[in-house]
Amino acid sequence: MYDKGLEIRTAVMGKAYVDRALAANSDDFGRPVQEYATEHAWGAVWGREGLTRKTRSMLTLAMLAILNRPHELRGHVRGAINNGVTKDEIREIFMHVGVYAGAPAMLDSIRIAKEMLAEIEKAG
Amino acid sequence: MYDKGLEIRTAVMGKAYVDRALAANSDDFGRPVQEYATEHAWGAVWGREGLTRKTRSMLTLAMLAILNRPHELRGHVRGAINNGVTKDEIREIFMHVGVYAGAPAMLDSIRIAKEMLAEIEKAG
Amino acid sequence: MYDKGLEIRTAVMGKAYVDRALAANSDDFGRPVQEYATEHAWGAVWGREGLTRKTRSMLTLAMLAILNRPHELRGHVRGAINNGVTKDEIREIFMHVGVYAGAPAMLDSIRIAKEMLAEIEKAG
Amino acid sequence: MYDKGLEIRTAVMGKAYVDRALAANSDDFGRPVQEYATEHAWGAVWGREGLTRKTRSMLTLAMLAILNRPHELRGHVRGAINNGVTKDEIREIFMHVGVYAGAPAMLDSIRIAKEMLAEIEKAG
Amino acid sequence: MYDKGLEIRTAVMGKAYVDRALAANSDDFGRPVQEYATEHAWGAVWGREGLTRKTRSMLTLAMLAILNRPHELRGHVRGAINNGVTKDEIREIFMHVGVYAGAPAMLDSIRIAKEMLAEIEKAG
Amino acid sequence: MYDKGLEIRTAVMGKAYVDRALAANSDDFGRPVQEYATEHAWGAVWGREGLTRKTRSMLTLAMLAILNRPHELRGHVRGAINNGVTKDEIREIFMHVGVYAGAPAMLDSIRIAKEMLAEIEKAG
Repeated sequence: MYDKGLEIRTAVMGKAYVDRALAANSDDFGRPVQEYATEHAWGAVWGREGLTRKTRSMLTLAMLAILNRPHELRGHVRGAINNGVTKDEIREIFMHVGVYAGAPAMLDSIRIAKEMLAEIEKAG
Repeated sequence: MYDKGLEIRTAVMGKAYVDRALAANSDDFGRPVQEYATEHAWGAVWGREGLTRKTRSMLTLAMLAILNRPHELRGHVRGAINNGVTKDEIREIFMHVGVYAGAPAMLDSIRIAKEMLAEIEKAG
Repeated sequence: MYDKGLEIRTAVMGKAYVDRALAANSDDFGRPVQEYATEHAWGAVWGREGLTRKTRSMLTLAMLAILNRPHELRGHVRGAINNGVTKDEIREIFMHVGVYAGAPAMLDSIRIAKEMLAEIEKAG
Repeated sequence: MYDKGLEIRTAVMGKAYVDRALAANSDDFGRPVQEYATEHAWGAVWGREGLTRKTRSMLTLAMLAILNRPHELRGHVRGAINNGVTKDEIREIFMHVGVYAGAPAMLDSIRIAKEMLAEIEKAG
Repeated sequence: MYDKGLEIRTAVMGKAYVDRALAANSDDFGRPVQEYATEHAWGAVWGREGLTRKTRSMLTLAMLAILNRPHELRGHVRGAINNGVTKDEIREIFMHVGVYAGAPAMLDSIRIAKEMLAEIEKAG
Repeated sequence: MYDKGLEIRTAVMGKAYVDRALAANSDDFGRPVQEYATEHAWGAVWGREGLTRKTRSMLTLAMLAILNRPHELRGHVRGAINNGVTKDEIREIFMHVGVYAGAPAMLDSIRIAKEMLAEIEKAG
């Protein structure tokens, strides 16, 4: 399950991101956390049938906007692009968030996504 | 925009639900709230291009699970079914919620959806 | 500070409400909690100069709507009325909540306030 | 990991509770959710060394108070008692919650715990 | 409604702030979001009768403190000053937040407001 | 109660931290807030019997992780170490948070704690 999770996580978030996360957490403090996330979140849930990866990315963006987690949101903007979510769809997701969770969640998320999308475009 | 919103809201949530909401809020206290929701949420956002209604329903279920709003969640389980989300997809959405927002949000939402789905099936 | 808190709490929430809360918590489990709330919330903050009680009630309604606490919200709808907040102002507060915290917080709060206001009007 | 999780879940929450949860979710809709919770929450985290079950119960009560999940909170009040948390400690936990998450989270949780503790005492 | 919203938004948040927000979102990604916020939040709700702008600012500060949105909070500290909320009232609002949403929301908000108020005073 | 609170706060958070907080809030804007937190949070709750300071620190870490307050979390990582919570226990607390509040709360908190623990170790 860990191997399956690592494969999916790498495909979605990119090798650079995952390598950095694992390297930053190679000690006894961080390693169990990375292993847990990789196995139980990426392997056991992202790895399930029943929703496409694109849909999972869309749900994840909406949830991270509400949960107010900019660091994770940035990573998952890239993940969403990798999973085929378009820039216009990202905007629509955050406008939909605006209806259910309010304007600040929408505006903050658009601002963060904008920065991240610029970074991705720049890196080519 | 209000008319467009009312049409979409009725198509998604069902005529019985919308009629009940409007009837319960026909006085000066509730009417402006219903008008605002219908126009600015249903008309101005649900009415936008760029995401299918099915995708909007999926995002809405995930958000209401996190926002912890059982009353709205029940209505939107029916809305999701009306928009073509399957029972299995609803389960997958809430398991995905479990990863990002924790087990209680997942378990509560599954319990509520289960009751609502039984009600829908019973009503035929 | 406890006496000051008890006086303000009674003036805002009504004698019946406070008597019921204290009676339900007269044992070792609940009493310290009631004493803490009365002294540190009602005495030390509600008792401060600088905001009118009406303003404090308005802020409280908006916060409880977001914090998603129906039981407390019901009590503070009555408290708001006691502090001179009008029915129309209560609706406006929850519509303002809708902008910042989303439609479900607005709709749930309006529904709860409506029930409570009907109860207050009935009791005369 | 599922078997380990089931054993711990049963020891903490009680056989009646777990049987009821599994029975209510024996169909295709609920079963994967119960399996996930049992394996990944109860097996993979509650089953870890490093914190006593009593400490895990205390953390869980504080978290559920903030997360505003009464249904789960009720179950975990019983779990806490089973893990050796005393009635006085439960009150102290919720007063500590009051400092960090506010009076409504404290008051709601005390009310729910009080009902549940009465039920447990009655059942002997 | 957009024009009305733009006028109110500019009066409350200041021309510099609004110009910057619109300029930063003049592309296809950000423009619909700015238009939506201006029309549906500023025009359709801030533009309603029934609460003074000062009261709306006070509610907004309390809500943003709980919603944990520092970027928006900073802008609305300025907005509150523009709408006649005093420095002492801002402190009282966040102490009131402390009671209902806990000490961290109070302390974080005071810290952010302090920085923003110093900036405003410096700019004269 | 203020003196008792100040003593406990200093013992838990360290003299440097408390001196800095008081100095940064020695004016009319911040002082009442510091006094309130010291007296009503530290004196009236942290000063209660019934939970050890170590347990209170553990609960506080879990709550701040969920409440998403990095500034406070950093201070309380140090407080937890001062109260005898070990580095391994901190990791276990945040993994337990992961189950109830989701992976982003866990991952963010681990990242913040890691930075803070490195700072503490460096300072010796």
